[in-house]
Amino acid sequence: MEMITSAQNSKVKNANKLKKKRDRDKTGQALIEGYHLIEEAYQSTVKIKQLFVVDVERLDEELMTYAEEVFEINLKVAESLSGTVTPQGFFAVIEKPVPETTQAKQVLLVDCIQDPGNLGTLIRTADAAGLDLIVLEKGTADPYQDKVLRASQGSVFHIPIITQELSEFIDHFEGNVYGTALENALPYQQIPSQDNFALLLGNEGEGVNADLLNKTTQNLTIPIYGKAESLNVAIAGSIVMYHLKG
Amino acid sequence: MEMITSAQNSKVKNANKLKKKRDRDKTGQALIEGYHLIEEAYQSTVKIKQLFVVDVERLDEELMTYAEEVFEINLKVAESLSGTVTPQGFFAVIEKPVPETTQAKQVLLVDCIQDPGNLGTLIRTADAAGLDLIVLEKGTADPYQDKVLRASQGSVFHIPIITQELSEFIDHFEGNVYGTALENALPYQQIPSQDNFALLLGNEGEGVNADLLNKTTQNLTIPIYGKAESLNVAIAGSIVMYHLKG
Repeated sequence: MEMITSAQNSKVKNANKLKKKRDRDKTGQALIEGYHLIEEAYQSTVKIKQLFVVDVERLDEELMTYAEEVFEINLKVAESLSGTVTPQGFFAVIEKPVPETTQAKQVLLVDCIQDPGNLGTLIRTADAAGLDLIVLEKGTADPYQDKVLRASQGSVFHIPIITQELSEFIDHFEGNVYGTALENALPYQQIPSQDNFALLLGNEGEGVNADLLNKTTQNLTIPIYGKAESLNVAIAGSIVMYHLKG
Repeated sequence: MEMITSAQNSKVKNANKLKKKRDRDKTGQALIEGYHLIEEAYQSTVKIKQLFVVDVERLDEELMTYAEEVFEINLKVAESLSGTVTPQGFFAVIEKPVPETTQAKQVLLVDCIQDPGNLGTLIRTADAAGLDLIVLEKGTADPYQDKVLRASQGSVFHIPIITQELSEFIDHFEGNVYGTALENALPYQQIPSQDNFALLLGNEGEGVNADLLNKTTQNLTIPIYGKAESLNVAIAGSIVMYHLKG
């Protein structure tokens, strides 16, 4: 196995470029980090172009065969690739899976959520709740950004995620579309659980775009019984997702 | 108004010490940061010992009168006090409120949650859901740590939070106690909403302590319909809290 000892190595430099969304979009690839996430990618038959690993002993045989190329790296190279303070020393360049366009019945619509932790957590909950599809409006955080990947705990490989104009998606969706809003909205508990729905969540500060809220079947709110002004968007989305599932 | 231009000033040094839990415990004080959080503390009549402010123009008259001491600081001092990359330049040393021991009916029990974002988000949701009390097991993150404060969005001032042995609390609580667990647990949807409950949440990695799970009325689980292994603890806790509220 080839050993890479310099962060200036061209493979490492290419991997590092994938920290930028522009380069991920251009190449269709992404850099992922950590044993759990790489294992999830492998289990989900995501194509692994390169593995970079400090502790070769920990490397699973099957995974090593599965990857197109495997490189041993030292700690210095690991630090240059890592997005964390204490790198596990295990990285992969993957091909971002291209979701099949299916007839989705339970969909999460995301209108420009910015915080990577919120987006990652929502992807994880949507996966747990068994939703079919996540649609992101342009301007939403990128699911292949490292903080989103980390918060999603690998769910980014389990559920199809596409970017599309939400207004167009809503026009063609055959099912109820529920927006989330603070005004002109029904307490979510008044809506029954159902098999066919889209749930629309908005930006942390500004909520859902008003034009989109006008296109929904019904807008929902989560009652505040105490003195908090609002709920975190990932929390609010998760409460309503599980409520709609029943 | 006195101007402080050095991070070596004794008032600033004392404020900075409050970033350590040990010093918060010893003095009963805490350092809080940002306009929103300080406004929340003021609205909740939390005692403000000192205000440190860069932009004196933005300072509210009433708040200025309310605080025992007010100091103008420069950006250098603000940077030394701040826990963020882009400080708002507004800090307060407060006296941590001592919660009155009331007969609480809706309680969140927290067994050693470590992540400050998770704890802060749970405090915010417990406040929103109108719970009466939060009880932390020793070893849980400190609610007056800056990342917890930030995630709680001021809810730390709205709801009483105490530290107590959970096993002792459960022994004396008159109401149903629900643990959260992956095994030997009922899907949470099978439990009706109710007026008198305690919800017990565990550590991110290890879950709730087994001895505590043995003491509950019933342990609950959130069904996973997709391929995610689990839910984030703040998400799981929030789903069940709102479910129990009805």
